[in-house]
Amino acid sequence: MNKKKIINDPIYGFINIPFELVFDIIEHPYFQRLRRIYQVGMTNLIYPGANHTRFHHTLGALHLMWQSIQHLRSKGILISDEEAEASCLAILMHDIGHGPFSHALEGVLIHQSHEDISLQIMKEVNQKYEGDLDLAIEIFTGKYHRSFLHQLVSSELDVDRLDYLNRDSFYSGVVEGKIGTDRIIKMLNVVDNELVIEEKGLYSIEKFLMARKIMYWQVYMHKTVLAAEKMLISAVERLKYLVVNASHLAPISIPLQHLLRHSHTDFQLQDFLKIDDIDVLYALKQHEYWEDDLFSYLCEGLLNRRLFRTQLQTKAFAEAEMENIHTKVGDFLKIDRDLAEKLIFSGTETTQFYNDIPHQIKFLMKDGRILPFEEISELGATNSQTKKHYLVYPKF
Amino acid sequence: MNKKKIINDPIYGFINIPFELVFDIIEHPYFQRLRRIYQVGMTNLIYPGANHTRFHHTLGALHLMWQSIQHLRSKGILISDEEAEASCLAILMHDIGHGPFSHALEGVLIHQSHEDISLQIMKEVNQKYEGDLDLAIEIFTGKYHRSFLHQLVSSELDVDRLDYLNRDSFYSGVVEGKIGTDRIIKMLNVVDNELVIEEKGLYSIEKFLMARKIMYWQVYMHKTVLAAEKMLISAVERLKYLVVNASHLAPISIPLQHLLRHSHTDFQLQDFLKIDDIDVLYALKQHEYWEDDLFSYLCEGLLNRRLFRTQLQTKAFAEAEMENIHTKVGDFLKIDRDLAEKLIFSGTETTQFYNDIPHQIKFLMKDGRILPFEEISELGATNSQTKKHYLVYPKF
Amino acid sequence: MNKKKIINDPIYGFINIPFELVFDIIEHPYFQRLRRIYQVGMTNLIYPGANHTRFHHTLGALHLMWQSIQHLRSKGILISDEEAEASCLAILMHDIGHGPFSHALEGVLIHQSHEDISLQIMKEVNQKYEGDLDLAIEIFTGKYHRSFLHQLVSSELDVDRLDYLNRDSFYSGVVEGKIGTDRIIKMLNVVDNELVIEEKGLYSIEKFLMARKIMYWQVYMHKTVLAAEKMLISAVERLKYLVVNASHLAPISIPLQHLLRHSHTDFQLQDFLKIDDIDVLYALKQHEYWEDDLFSYLCEGLLNRRLFRTQLQTKAFAEAEMENIHTKVGDFLKIDRDLAEKLIFSGTETTQFYNDIPHQIKFLMKDGRILPFEEISELGATNSQTKKHYLVYPKF
Amino acid sequence: MNKKKIINDPIYGFINIPFELVFDIIEHPYFQRLRRIYQVGMTNLIYPGANHTRFHHTLGALHLMWQSIQHLRSKGILISDEEAEASCLAILMHDIGHGPFSHALEGVLIHQSHEDISLQIMKEVNQKYEGDLDLAIEIFTGKYHRSFLHQLVSSELDVDRLDYLNRDSFYSGVVEGKIGTDRIIKMLNVVDNELVIEEKGLYSIEKFLMARKIMYWQVYMHKTVLAAEKMLISAVERLKYLVVNASHLAPISIPLQHLLRHSHTDFQLQDFLKIDDIDVLYALKQHEYWEDDLFSYLCEGLLNRRLFRTQLQTKAFAEAEMENIHTKVGDFLKIDRDLAEKLIFSGTETTQFYNDIPHQIKFLMKDGRILPFEEISELGATNSQTKKHYLVYPKF
Repeated sequence: MNKKKIINDPIYGFINIPFELVFDIIEHPYFQRLRRIYQVGMTNLIYPGANHTRFHHTLGALHLMWQSIQHLRSKGILISDEEAEASCLAILMHDIGHGPFSHALEGVLIHQSHEDISLQIMKEVNQKYEGDLDLAIEIFTGKYHRSFLHQLVSSELDVDRLDYLNRDSFYSGVVEGKIGTDRIIKMLNVVDNELVIEEKGLYSIEKFLMARKIMYWQVYMHKTVLAAEKMLISAVERLKYLVVNASHLAPISIPLQHLLRHSHTDFQLQDFLKIDDIDVLYALKQHEYWEDDLFSYLCEGLLNRRLFRTQLQTKAFAEAEMENIHTKVGDFLKIDRDLAEKLIFSGTETTQFYNDIPHQIKFLMKDGRILPFEEISELGATNSQTKKHYLVYPKF
Repeated sequence: MNKKKIINDPIYGFINIPFELVFDIIEHPYFQRLRRIYQVGMTNLIYPGANHTRFHHTLGALHLMWQSIQHLRSKGILISDEEAEASCLAILMHDIGHGPFSHALEGVLIHQSHEDISLQIMKEVNQKYEGDLDLAIEIFTGKYHRSFLHQLVSSELDVDRLDYLNRDSFYSGVVEGKIGTDRIIKMLNVVDNELVIEEKGLYSIEKFLMARKIMYWQVYMHKTVLAAEKMLISAVERLKYLVVNASHLAPISIPLQHLLRHSHTDFQLQDFLKIDDIDVLYALKQHEYWEDDLFSYLCEGLLNRRLFRTQLQTKAFAEAEMENIHTKVGDFLKIDRDLAEKLIFSGTETTQFYNDIPHQIKFLMKDGRILPFEEISELGATNSQTKKHYLVYPKF
Repeated sequence: MNKKKIINDPIYGFINIPFELVFDIIEHPYFQRLRRIYQVGMTNLIYPGANHTRFHHTLGALHLMWQSIQHLRSKGILISDEEAEASCLAILMHDIGHGPFSHALEGVLIHQSHEDISLQIMKEVNQKYEGDLDLAIEIFTGKYHRSFLHQLVSSELDVDRLDYLNRDSFYSGVVEGKIGTDRIIKMLNVVDNELVIEEKGLYSIEKFLMARKIMYWQVYMHKTVLAAEKMLISAVERLKYLVVNASHLAPISIPLQHLLRHSHTDFQLQDFLKIDDIDVLYALKQHEYWEDDLFSYLCEGLLNRRLFRTQLQTKAFAEAEMENIHTKVGDFLKIDRDLAEKLIFSGTETTQFYNDIPHQIKFLMKDGRILPFEEISELGATNSQTKKHYLVYPKF
Repeated sequence: MNKKKIINDPIYGFINIPFELVFDIIEHPYFQRLRRIYQVGMTNLIYPGANHTRFHHTLGALHLMWQSIQHLRSKGILISDEEAEASCLAILMHDIGHGPFSHALEGVLIHQSHEDISLQIMKEVNQKYEGDLDLAIEIFTGKYHRSFLHQLVSSELDVDRLDYLNRDSFYSGVVEGKIGTDRIIKMLNVVDNELVIEEKGLYSIEKFLMARKIMYWQVYMHKTVLAAEKMLISAVERLKYLVVNASHLAPISIPLQHLLRHSHTDFQLQDFLKIDDIDVLYALKQHEYWEDDLFSYLCEGLLNRRLFRTQLQTKAFAEAEMENIHTKVGDFLKIDRDLAEKLIFSGTETTQFYNDIPHQIKFLMKDGRILPFEEISELGATNSQTKKHYLVYPKF
């Protein structure tokens, strides 16, 4: 069987599958499951084009990994075929532990990080393949001595980020988020087993950081996206409460019930591997007209895009302002204060233009020195956090 | 409330909502439901980027309608605001009657055309809006005397086609399907209330027909897409059989059950309006490991992309060849002949480069004559049908 | 010195220079001269973006050659480094024999084909490089036994065409001319040393032929482009007449004078290698206000875009109609009949959708047969010529 | 005659000519002359795609002006047809005073700013059109009371910049310089006759400033571009010296001679209006093999791309280092110190990420306040100058 498939991709043109084992993992049901998990959760309620999946993003990251390896080899960096294959496998499985709606429900439905679950799945698959993923796991966990391979998988400038920024920009239509992956990859180099950027790539990196910032505030933390995510979290928490308390509910999938009831104390990987966005969306659909007012109110809002309002500001919200909103929400929906509180969300979102911790972006200067971004960029000082306070509540 | 929203679109940049009533229809749950129906069904199993929805396509077609109206007005064609609004509403609702997986399940799950159901929904909504959609319905059904407005909604060169070819090309990454909508719209004109293309637009139309042909064979009738659709049809027919015969089944959604049991004899619009791709995908997921071998085999194949093989050829398959395949499938799956037959599909797919019936594409020549495409294009003779015989069956 | 340069290209992103000798030829003044020759002559008077040069086109074709070689190697076709380098050199120099305004002035200013002159230049350079271009010349002239290398340089589907269609489309903004070079290259294969396309590439080839047709009529034979070219030819012929007859003229470049006077009888390559578009444009500028009415009229028209009118039609122009135009032009410009005739151009332009002679496009079918395009494409019959009669004359 | 032409543009698709007078100005020889002036001078020696012209850029800026006017009108800002036309004329003629190689030769060939010459030309044309350009001139010179119209023509965020950044990025292939003109224009508003950006446009503006910075260092101040420009300046200065001193020279164009001899003391607009890049390039070609060593050395280098070396650094060059280079250049070229000095250029180039003087970018906050960029952007502090010292000299 020909395992050297070519996959069409609107962003890179064609994606090649460079190794047979990589092809086999893509074919595996655990990986195919990522077809049913949106890359950016509820974002399609705001950007209707953003229906791309974890599956597609991962193939994109695989493509960039393979490009990077080929490029580094052309610069004389020795990378064995075994290392190349393992790096491709590591990036391929880096997101395999994502659950329904990815980040939005991390901590709500599942109480482990997706990286931890990815590692569990890699280990399980590795057993079946009798150790063929050993090196991939070493690279994924950062234990392999050639650090740059791990840095390509996970660092401030890994191929994961390069793909998701580009892909989220492409599918949402927020063109300001587009980054020059081609050029950035051409600027990569390796010194003492560490990934570095050549000095003349500085502007491309500055542009990359700027694009990331734009994507944060224009897409990932967009006011209405935030509202939809808070509603989804609230809905799933309510569903959990109803499941745990054995309330009357319409049928939902068995593995989802298990996870809602036990994931905190007795997480079962096999349950996890059976659920995806479909299970959650179906649960919402089942209860759009349900007797539990709170739950059905949230389900109906999410399905028909009656989304909450978000206020976003740099200073904290005043007590009186929040009190006022509580009262108005309660009055408008004719619900008591306790219930109203379940529908009002406040907190902060923080981004950083450039994080030097834990991973600096390092540059190889023309004179051979290695210097971190913050020392050579005039934007290097711009590493202070941007913190915004949000207040999300039903429209009244 | 500001109803003059702007929506980001990766293809056109920004889509404006030109009328308040258009905005209200978009907000309606009947329309929001289109967010949960893929534009090209199972095609994302082959082109992983093709996750775009009926919702997004319809907004795109609305955009092109509004562009066309503005362009025709700039050429001196009088179009009243009422006509413009009604045309926008007609295109907005032209696909609202699509059920789960659109075309693939038309005739299987639902026994009416999607256009008929669109009309029923328009009429229902029109009642609520006390006749505000009267003119939109006239245009949609082709009864309005200014035929070009209907032709913009539905003809050989309507804005529906312009958008879906472009959008399916964009999201699948099959760049050969891209068409120059901008230029085609700039070539539109109206003579005696009929839509015409200016003579110098001939090459653009030829290119459009070529792009359509490419999309047919490279995407819509792609061998593996065909396999996935046949598997889906077979799975839903099996589900129907099991529902009607009250076999033991895992829970699936109530309205889906109703439709499976009654749609042929007693179609209920309210059931229809509650289902979308989620209901069907959930039903597949519920029975991936079910006791009915045939059904679970199909569910498992669709969910994990273990797709059937397709042979496509210009001449009919020989009896002996088909017999041979029947035997091999039966042997391989260890099933009897009757069951094997349910897993083997044969038939023909036909496309036509250019259909002069029922709608010719008419050109306004520089000398004022109106001539049909087939008379002025050297490709006009290429209107013979392309017919291909397919044979779809489990890999063995 | 680092000769592995990367060049920015808006179309392909980056162009790599794959061999040192290729780099050296690019640096050579004979090749640098192509920077001063527009790829599509006077077309920028109609498409203001079309200022790209022979230099840039050649680099693009080099890029596609290198892509093709790498792709064929990945399919197991053995191509030695020497063959690869020679093929790159052959494509690099295939247009080096173009004179000012390329095709437009072939036969007017120079009386040999640009291919012949390219070969002369290759031979001269080969002497200097002591035979390093021997194989490149064999490939260029089609004498090397591995025909596919020549076919990549020059055939119905060579990298020259792939680049110029794409590049002319890109810079003119006629998006309908864009072709999927990536996909076409991925479909290339070699059987018995002949270049073939894999069967599944059929639609891409049909699209390529359609794009070419569009570019012909929308750009290369665009009515106003035709007018500008006829004016240019007429201007240069007049200039030649004035030079030969030692009329009073403003200074123009010496090698241009030589060519105008002697190219027919005593072509000197060294004169040719000194002239480019600048010499001709300067000659036009020098005589915008000159005493020779005919010449200055043409110069002024070309420089200030007062272009002639073109009529284009499928049947021949009637005697009476042409007579009428002669009279009107004469009356309007107040010139006698002889002079008027120098300003009126008639003739035919012919294109063919697909030329099976001398080079068929051959397909490698899945069953191993090799079939020509015309046998497997439904557009194969469309190989009749399209002939148009033109009449170009001053506006009156 | 139909003056509502549509022009193809690879960047915006189609450019409409919105007014008849605008069409007439485009047709004028003074404006057509801009076809023969490269937008970015010698940059095509480094980025071979960057052959776009002042003519094309100006049409692009016209397009953005018209988009901006239509957008502002849709927001309720009243702009009369007279004002709209005048603004279009002002932007159309803002660069009409550019001479050969634009900025590179300002101060060398011509001793007035191009804005001053643009104004002189506008006044001359205005006389011919009997005052039809009165308002355009008021807007261009900033005297019209509705300042935002002038700000669209000339300010920190005018349509001139929006187009040239986008266009230079597009044609050079430096994709990092692409800006979202669509979105920026949609964010424009007017308060108290001043142009403002709506608060939510902040990220787009930050991205615009970043793109500009990238274009500065990657294109406009690219090391090799700088070398080519210094060589050009030196060549023209030498030519001037030879003309003024009546040295023996090959023929060059009369108006160029006049300007070289008199532009400092007795500038003649009619001479200026006759020269463009062709005159200068021709002068270089005429002297590639001339007896004046210095001049022919520079001509030959520019024509055959034998460009000087540039060193660029943040601190000043040490005396000893410069002395050393002087000696080496002299030794290598076997020329004396005086001549060597004419071939060595040092100085500084400065850019500013954001200039608040003289034109702040002002934002309309959601609460109605008007705040400058530097107060609301975390990049606002980044307004310090970036200064680089350059040293350009012949390779040895």
